[in-house]
Amino acid sequence: MNGLATALTALDYAAVAVFGATGALAAARRKHDIITFGFFAAVTGVGGGTLRDLLIGAPVFWVGRPQYLVVCLAAAAAVWVLGPRRFRSRILTWLDALGLAAYAVVGALKATSLGVPPISAIVMGVLTATFGGVIRDILAHEPSVLLQRELYVTPALAGAGAFVGLGLIGAPALLAGGAGFAIALSIRAGAILWGWSLQGFGGPTTDDP
Amino acid sequence: MNGLATALTALDYAAVAVFGATGALAAARRKHDIITFGFFAAVTGVGGGTLRDLLIGAPVFWVGRPQYLVVCLAAAAAVWVLGPRRFRSRILTWLDALGLAAYAVVGALKATSLGVPPISAIVMGVLTATFGGVIRDILAHEPSVLLQRELYVTPALAGAGAFVGLGLIGAPALLAGGAGFAIALSIRAGAILWGWSLQGFGGPTTDDP
Amino acid sequence: MNGLATALTALDYAAVAVFGATGALAAARRKHDIITFGFFAAVTGVGGGTLRDLLIGAPVFWVGRPQYLVVCLAAAAAVWVLGPRRFRSRILTWLDALGLAAYAVVGALKATSLGVPPISAIVMGVLTATFGGVIRDILAHEPSVLLQRELYVTPALAGAGAFVGLGLIGAPALLAGGAGFAIALSIRAGAILWGWSLQGFGGPTTDDP
Repeated sequence: MNGLATALTALDYAAVAVFGATGALAAARRKHDIITFGFFAAVTGVGGGTLRDLLIGAPVFWVGRPQYLVVCLAAAAAVWVLGPRRFRSRILTWLDALGLAAYAVVGALKATSLGVPPISAIVMGVLTATFGGVIRDILAHEPSVLLQRELYVTPALAGAGAFVGLGLIGAPALLAGGAGFAIALSIRAGAILWGWSLQGFGGPTTDDP
Repeated sequence: MNGLATALTALDYAAVAVFGATGALAAARRKHDIITFGFFAAVTGVGGGTLRDLLIGAPVFWVGRPQYLVVCLAAAAAVWVLGPRRFRSRILTWLDALGLAAYAVVGALKATSLGVPPISAIVMGVLTATFGGVIRDILAHEPSVLLQRELYVTPALAGAGAFVGLGLIGAPALLAGGAGFAIALSIRAGAILWGWSLQGFGGPTTDDP
Repeated sequence: MNGLATALTALDYAAVAVFGATGALAAARRKHDIITFGFFAAVTGVGGGTLRDLLIGAPVFWVGRPQYLVVCLAAAAAVWVLGPRRFRSRILTWLDALGLAAYAVVGALKATSLGVPPISAIVMGVLTATFGGVIRDILAHEPSVLLQRELYVTPALAGAGAFVGLGLIGAPALLAGGAGFAIALSIRAGAILWGWSLQGFGGPTTDDP
């Protein structure tokens, strides 16, 4: 269980950092100043977990532990310093994929550990994984990542569902978490690399939204 | 009181279902996949009530009772199966009207039953009734339903106000709830059918927003 | 301490009123009716403080004291009655600046008084000051005030930071609050009057977003 707690904390900070970096990159595309970088990094980094904590009635995780905010600001500073050429939308997409997979598991785990029923716990995983990016896109006045044709909610759902389902049949938490992370990341990677998508409503998938 | 409780529970599930269906229809217009259908249905179906519960400090209603989510997913599946020809924006508009009227009463009732003062309870009715649709429109990157010329907030306000006001003068809850529902639905129906609107700011109402 | 409490309450109501007025003015620009005026005024007026209270786990301030809502509605009625010629976007901008400065201090003060650590308390000041306007812009389907080139988050951050920092080194609360308010307002005024901005990412600041 100690291994799990350590892995979980690392995953948690890593997810905050990568989502924070995607927030700063959204600010970079609009050539914003360093303060707005930090603001977008913080909102994106902690947004999904904040919604999860509000919904399950837990104290919001970063309020009592501001080091999460510091991680977001460090991610924003890194994007600022490394400059526009090295961070491209491709990198943003992949960081977002890592954060999505990590948060799908972390969000569902926190919910189940507080006694939330399985279906709601899966939803918490999905919300934690997706809402940071949704808030980022809304604040940046861009079409939400949800509206893409590529799979986005689906990998989060598959990862959180696998984690919760494996836990229900008695799998060790570290295994269930690893499997959930790997499944979410694999599906999202397929969507990024090969444009995986499910059939759209009303006929074959087309590219125009 | 038993009749009220039963009517209320039925109204609550019905409102979740119809708002869920409007969320799925928003996804249908953009030809999204089944997972995104479910996501939009869930967010729209439970969004208004979630905001109400957060504001009044109650446990969020669906977290401990995931059957509300199942109702949303069933609504999404129904929209998917019934196909594009049978569900048109007209139907979405009327389902939304039913949900609006139901939630105006349900939202105000839950608030008053938890000791919220009358003015705030009316606001809870309005927020519960309108925010599911607002969140749906924001996520779909469409102009919010609030920005229409047609009456939308007004019927929710009239319905919640009638319910709370009748309760204050001692009317039975079932009567007050029925009156509030009927008033909200009637005003919204007038807005849909005959374009009822209030005078806009700065002169006669015009159609361009 | 009594002087502080009085000043704080006055500042709190004043911030709600001016943000409420900016919400009504956003509705005025689209020629909305009086009910939508009130809705926008209420959401903008109490939005930032609502987010703060949810995040720090305090009861949402206006739910038990609906007089805050009445202040918002009065601000909306004032905008309606005074008419379109007297309220222009310039006035909206300055009211917004006053509300920003007041809420940066009030938000951080409420957080520190509930034991929130300094860095998180500063963030609460920033969120309280900026999110009412952000929600207003999202609901009005306009680009968020965050996306302007002009300094907006920065004055809130400087004001909240000065207030919290001065408190940490033992300054009296009334002095720290006055200094925080003055600093936030001064920086925002410079941004409005002379277009103060920080260097944007990737090169000299340009005007196109």
